[in-house]
Amino acid sequence: MNKTPPYDIAITMGDPAGIGPEIICRAVAKMTAKEQSRCLLIGDINTFADASVLTNSQLEFCDVGSVDGQAGAIAVANIPAPADQPIAAGQISAAAGDMAFRCVKEAVRQVQTKQASVIVTAPLNKAALHAAGHLYDGHTGMLAALTKAESSFMLLASEKLSTLHVSTHVALKEAIARMTPQRIIATVLAGHAHLRKLGLDEPNIAVAGLNPHCGEGGIFGSEDEEIIVPAVTELQSQGLKVTGPISADTVFYRASQGEFDLVIAQYHDQGHIPMKLIAFETTVNVSLGLPVQRTSVDHGTAFDIAWKGIADATNLGEAIAYARRLASHT
Amino acid sequence: MNKTPPYDIAITMGDPAGIGPEIICRAVAKMTAKEQSRCLLIGDINTFADASVLTNSQLEFCDVGSVDGQAGAIAVANIPAPADQPIAAGQISAAAGDMAFRCVKEAVRQVQTKQASVIVTAPLNKAALHAAGHLYDGHTGMLAALTKAESSFMLLASEKLSTLHVSTHVALKEAIARMTPQRIIATVLAGHAHLRKLGLDEPNIAVAGLNPHCGEGGIFGSEDEEIIVPAVTELQSQGLKVTGPISADTVFYRASQGEFDLVIAQYHDQGHIPMKLIAFETTVNVSLGLPVQRTSVDHGTAFDIAWKGIADATNLGEAIAYARRLASHT
Repeated sequence: MNKTPPYDIAITMGDPAGIGPEIICRAVAKMTAKEQSRCLLIGDINTFADASVLTNSQLEFCDVGSVDGQAGAIAVANIPAPADQPIAAGQISAAAGDMAFRCVKEAVRQVQTKQASVIVTAPLNKAALHAAGHLYDGHTGMLAALTKAESSFMLLASEKLSTLHVSTHVALKEAIARMTPQRIIATVLAGHAHLRKLGLDEPNIAVAGLNPHCGEGGIFGSEDEEIIVPAVTELQSQGLKVTGPISADTVFYRASQGEFDLVIAQYHDQGHIPMKLIAFETTVNVSLGLPVQRTSVDHGTAFDIAWKGIADATNLGEAIAYARRLASHT
Repeated sequence: MNKTPPYDIAITMGDPAGIGPEIICRAVAKMTAKEQSRCLLIGDINTFADASVLTNSQLEFCDVGSVDGQAGAIAVANIPAPADQPIAAGQISAAAGDMAFRCVKEAVRQVQTKQASVIVTAPLNKAALHAAGHLYDGHTGMLAALTKAESSFMLLASEKLSTLHVSTHVALKEAIARMTPQRIIATVLAGHAHLRKLGLDEPNIAVAGLNPHCGEGGIFGSEDEEIIVPAVTELQSQGLKVTGPISADTVFYRASQGEFDLVIAQYHDQGHIPMKLIAFETTVNVSLGLPVQRTSVDHGTAFDIAWKGIADATNLGEAIAYARRLASHT
């Protein structure tokens, strides 16, 4: 067996002008001492100190490189903010976007060098990222590039319902045009492997249909019969417990009642609509198919309320809890 | 003012081999005497009598044509079942499909001749309907043909959330291809008129986007900007309180929290997924844009449990309550 990394989770600060630093302090303050000792923060140590004061979290921080650290202090892989470019709360800036990028890059390095098991990301701002010259569509594309991954899949997970997406950030028309049995099979296999890793021996997976009533025998579109059915048949022949296509208007309800462990959604909104509706604050975003494991909050930088000390850390707490589960099964 | 019709609602039996007759008896048995006196059933009077015995509803029925009827008996516009073609519970048959059709036709006649205000339909079986030579896609197409309506819109209504559909039973690809500002405007206007009829002075209507994050400025598709924005702008210029496009992954949540009275869904599953998830048993299907008003259960004939006395009438009760609200505002 491999040596267990010293840290279960590495939490990136996200865009320092957003709510990341303060929700991280709130979430870390709620951890037990043992959990704190196995948590590595990644970002500017002074920014974390400011956020701790703002949120009255009474945390101490120490550089992860300092010998033995400081008893009770939270380890930080320090990514110093640029001294000559002050970052203003709630403002889009290249400096902040670059900070967010460097934190993620460092997190990947920490995981790849076995210092931490799972990455947890606080939100970044895409415009700031682009202003800094990092032209990614967000965390997922950045992580894929940094780890040279060929593909990744977005899992939205909550206690009542989890959905994994065949496609995400493309036009709906494009999502339909790009559907293939191969992509559906790859998505199901990624979900299956993930659930197995979390301890489910035989995950029970449902595949949502694309058209109304799964096309009702071809009257309302042929993709369900021509693309989804062959994928499900192939997966079943491999011995997986997979059912589908199931009409999208009932499959999420059935899964939320406990019938399935996971629903495969064919496009972004098909999976996001039910998740946001029944688990608005507790949905965790998990990247599957990357060589590093990563969970994330399912909200943005909230520039309008950043650095006012009022941001809620519930969702980050869920992302951390999920990452800790993953770390314990790694 | 027009004379008030003697009956608020006309309830069709649906396919007599399904659960229609028994859930109707259960629902009618729960009505007050006054409500019963303003309720007209449409179907075979002997079938209703059998269903009353099955469900221990202890109802008496009388033909609506009989002089003054019978005190306390439920009025029935009798559509006799064919004596030579016995209808078997839970079986698809042309005889049952034809019965279902004739009930709807009679209901339309009752409303058009001002005998009843609003139609409530119990479920029919599409295969049985087609076997009888009535080649409609279901109730909505049948009602449109019977009333010579040019278009109709499907509203799914519940206490927490209501959605009205720009398109329904077409392939998703087709639904996108057929999107026009005109169709969206017509849908919003139908919803606006309906809510005004129900007593809302200034309905607050949200229009869902089509693509992920409403296309995020055109990166993920152009329909939101090119088709939905012009429709919303036009409606706003007419003085309507309409907002959109709003990202589909948040608009239903926001509406369920009370921010909007109605959400316009761009396609079948976009509206059906959230409705089934948060109001599986209480969603009522309402047809808008027809010259007759009609509500319906949001489930099928349930042939597998028909005539066993176990079918639940909750959903029909909701459809009846909604129809009664409509009748009181007519």
